[in-house]
Amino acid sequence: MDAYRDLEKIFRRIGALSDAEGILHWDMSVIMPSGGADARAEQLAALKLTIHESLTAPRVADLLDQAEAAPPTEDWQAANLHEMRRTWRHATAIDAGLVEALSKASSRCEMIWREARPDGNFAAVSGALGEVLDLVRDKAACKAEAFGVLPYEALLDQYEPGIRVTDIDHLFDDLALFLPDFLHTVMESQACSGDAAGPEPLVGPFDLDSQRKLGIDLMSHVGFDFDHGRLDVSLHPFCGGVPDDVRITTRYNEDDFAHSLMGVLHETGHAMYERGLPDAWRFQPVGQARGMAMHESQSLLIEMQVCRGREFLSFAAPLMRRAFGADGSAWHPDNLYRLYTSVRPDFIRVDADEVTYPAHIILRYRLERALIDGDITVADLPSAWNDAMAELLGLTPPSDREGCLQDIHWYDGAFGYFPTYTMGALAAAQIFAAATTRDAEIKPAIGRGDFAPLMRWLRCNIHSQASIAGTNDILHEATGQALGTSAFKAHLQSRYLDRST
Amino acid sequence: MDAYRDLEKIFRRIGALSDAEGILHWDMSVIMPSGGADARAEQLAALKLTIHESLTAPRVADLLDQAEAAPPTEDWQAANLHEMRRTWRHATAIDAGLVEALSKASSRCEMIWREARPDGNFAAVSGALGEVLDLVRDKAACKAEAFGVLPYEALLDQYEPGIRVTDIDHLFDDLALFLPDFLHTVMESQACSGDAAGPEPLVGPFDLDSQRKLGIDLMSHVGFDFDHGRLDVSLHPFCGGVPDDVRITTRYNEDDFAHSLMGVLHETGHAMYERGLPDAWRFQPVGQARGMAMHESQSLLIEMQVCRGREFLSFAAPLMRRAFGADGSAWHPDNLYRLYTSVRPDFIRVDADEVTYPAHIILRYRLERALIDGDITVADLPSAWNDAMAELLGLTPPSDREGCLQDIHWYDGAFGYFPTYTMGALAAAQIFAAATTRDAEIKPAIGRGDFAPLMRWLRCNIHSQASIAGTNDILHEATGQALGTSAFKAHLQSRYLDRST
Repeated sequence: MDAYRDLEKIFRRIGALSDAEGILHWDMSVIMPSGGADARAEQLAALKLTIHESLTAPRVADLLDQAEAAPPTEDWQAANLHEMRRTWRHATAIDAGLVEALSKASSRCEMIWREARPDGNFAAVSGALGEVLDLVRDKAACKAEAFGVLPYEALLDQYEPGIRVTDIDHLFDDLALFLPDFLHTVMESQACSGDAAGPEPLVGPFDLDSQRKLGIDLMSHVGFDFDHGRLDVSLHPFCGGVPDDVRITTRYNEDDFAHSLMGVLHETGHAMYERGLPDAWRFQPVGQARGMAMHESQSLLIEMQVCRGREFLSFAAPLMRRAFGADGSAWHPDNLYRLYTSVRPDFIRVDADEVTYPAHIILRYRLERALIDGDITVADLPSAWNDAMAELLGLTPPSDREGCLQDIHWYDGAFGYFPTYTMGALAAAQIFAAATTRDAEIKPAIGRGDFAPLMRWLRCNIHSQASIAGTNDILHEATGQALGTSAFKAHLQSRYLDRST
Repeated sequence: MDAYRDLEKIFRRIGALSDAEGILHWDMSVIMPSGGADARAEQLAALKLTIHESLTAPRVADLLDQAEAAPPTEDWQAANLHEMRRTWRHATAIDAGLVEALSKASSRCEMIWREARPDGNFAAVSGALGEVLDLVRDKAACKAEAFGVLPYEALLDQYEPGIRVTDIDHLFDDLALFLPDFLHTVMESQACSGDAAGPEPLVGPFDLDSQRKLGIDLMSHVGFDFDHGRLDVSLHPFCGGVPDDVRITTRYNEDDFAHSLMGVLHETGHAMYERGLPDAWRFQPVGQARGMAMHESQSLLIEMQVCRGREFLSFAAPLMRRAFGADGSAWHPDNLYRLYTSVRPDFIRVDADEVTYPAHIILRYRLERALIDGDITVADLPSAWNDAMAELLGLTPPSDREGCLQDIHWYDGAFGYFPTYTMGALAAAQIFAAATTRDAEIKPAIGRGDFAPLMRWLRCNIHSQASIAGTNDILHEATGQALGTSAFKAHLQSRYLDRST
């Protein structure tokens, strides 16, 4: 046990330094004046290097071997040791030279992409993306060897530990079969419904301070604790900070409050997960969020499952009217529900509704896997993108700006991240169905703005589990089954085809 | 040179980690929700320990020995090596056990002090202060041995490198002789002047947002660059952040805008020093501010020498009137000048004017030195304080709340800091006299709100010098003499006795 205890001390320090990084990142996006950028980069690089050196010190390898030779018998400690080894493998699998080369190539490529995207000029960035891809493939090969998995799976493991491509194929192939017909039916149903003109729009301007207050009010109803967190403004909304000090951000638009508000509720879902992680395991690997799929499940559960649902909108409608001093039929819960569940295929992922979103992800998953496996090259990307778009959504982007240039991820070196969005959407539906089945009080309470029953269930079954087990094991324990598509499909069916209005 | 180059790399990382600490400290005082305190303490402790371990690693001692055996010939590199050794000596002089014991005892004592101060209950905190003092004396003894100086001097060295008690005695004894008579004369002069009722007060309320805008306007005139810094609100105003991202804070009061405004200008002086440190030596020990006396000289130069002076107030008066939509004789520059240079002996240091302030410092210097030298004990403190107060300012505090309980410093373990306030005031007078003598354009420009000539001179002669030499050497180079009292006395004479109104 001595070796394990020593590892806990080392990882506690690493955890605290990572948390320091989290706060500095938040500051960089929200507070920092532009002239502080170089100094901040130096601070973050020093922290990153210090963490890397702590993880890769020979003593850690020795301690891990010793601890595994006589592993702790207590579940959380055993799981913690397992997560320590996983973290160590990721840190030691690639050498410092490759880390640096990838970091530089990604920064360079991202900068070129920022210029190339507005013009839809893929040719301008394809060279830089090729360099990034080559280095990412090197990384994937090294990590694949360390973990004994496929190269693409080694990249996935950085975001969603232990996931295999067969698991994803199983889920995504099923969705790819289901969605085109379903989408067609939904579009027909929406066109044929009583109001062919669609829902009435809400007309602004919407005062920014009123938007902020409404957001804070609804965050508080969800359970966000402002003694342990903040709401601020940043260009790209995110959930940052640390579990005891969770900081979410948004961006306000005078003409459309709902976009920001739904974003705030989405980030609040992320924040509630972080806040619900077990106190006793703060700073230890096992005490961290399970992975990005589980994280996204918590934000989508709040935003998509709950806050675009009838119960919540009935509760929120009068608060919205009061916030903006508004009135009229557009503010009726039925109209709000139609507004926030309208479906329309589009080129842009971040604007997509929950019916078409998976198609955007399946497309990216297939293409990034093909790029990593060497089945297509960077030069093939624009046409491969457009072919897949036509197949999955029946659309052809007018230019690469609305096509393969739209997302930052690949240009920034992040391959293997995209699938977690849709895995999160599937998990959100599955978890919400299980929760509301097992506690019949959850939905009526939401109708009164009371999230306590839902949060109690999530705390107990999801948040407090942190990384005690794999995503599928936690889901199985919480919902009775591993991650699947049936709850998501049932949710779509119920929301988009069994409409009572 | 290889050893020196390796040290530069090590110290660059340490410098960047210290900067990370600086931002996290700022965040703790300005932004952090209360529930984040424990997590933040863990982050800061991890950083502090990492920095300490980096400094005290055996390799650093070896490299210092090697580098000193064949020191760099270039001035800045040689001075950098000298500062590295000084930093290393402070880090290695005391063992980790003493550091931890002192940190815990100080935290405990500070907490008790916060309770005891409002009641003037010295007895409640004297035990805890005794424990802190014992540990500080241990620290002083260890550092004295490492540096070959007196124990109290070893504490001074933490804030003002290389200063000796004979230097301070020389300055402070002179002031202690000069000030009582001078104060008496000023008080008589103020009482006999035309307006026996004193200056007209400015009557609020003063809108907080207008105060903030006025502060930002005047900061910009001084030269503060908002691309490299921020102004925020905190309970205790300070200058934090890092040279490329300097963050000052203030606290607003609706009834009195001047207190906050003069504080903002004071912190802007600190900020301009940080911003003016040489880019080329960022993150290296030699690139840091010279010490707390020089730092305080820069804040007092802006606040006391410039912004309470006639030229600046003539320029600022119309801006103040416009900011608050005010008018009348109270807003005339002559009245503002009388307001901001009025003298009145009082018990409280932080409210003291520049004539009586040194008496507060001399008192604390004598007492803290006697405590460290063992000439008095903690039990003697209240009566020793009151005796010195009677001698220096002719006042007797009504209770220990207005006496030896008023400052946080000792209760928090900070001995050796107080002298830097008055050394800073002396240096400010000396530097401003030299600057305005050598560049006749400085004062008239200030009268137009143009600080550029002053800042050019300070950048060149003070800020850019960082820690290339000791305080006295930098002062000698800039002003023609080492730190003395004559410029300060001449300034007081001119401002408080040669009044033309």
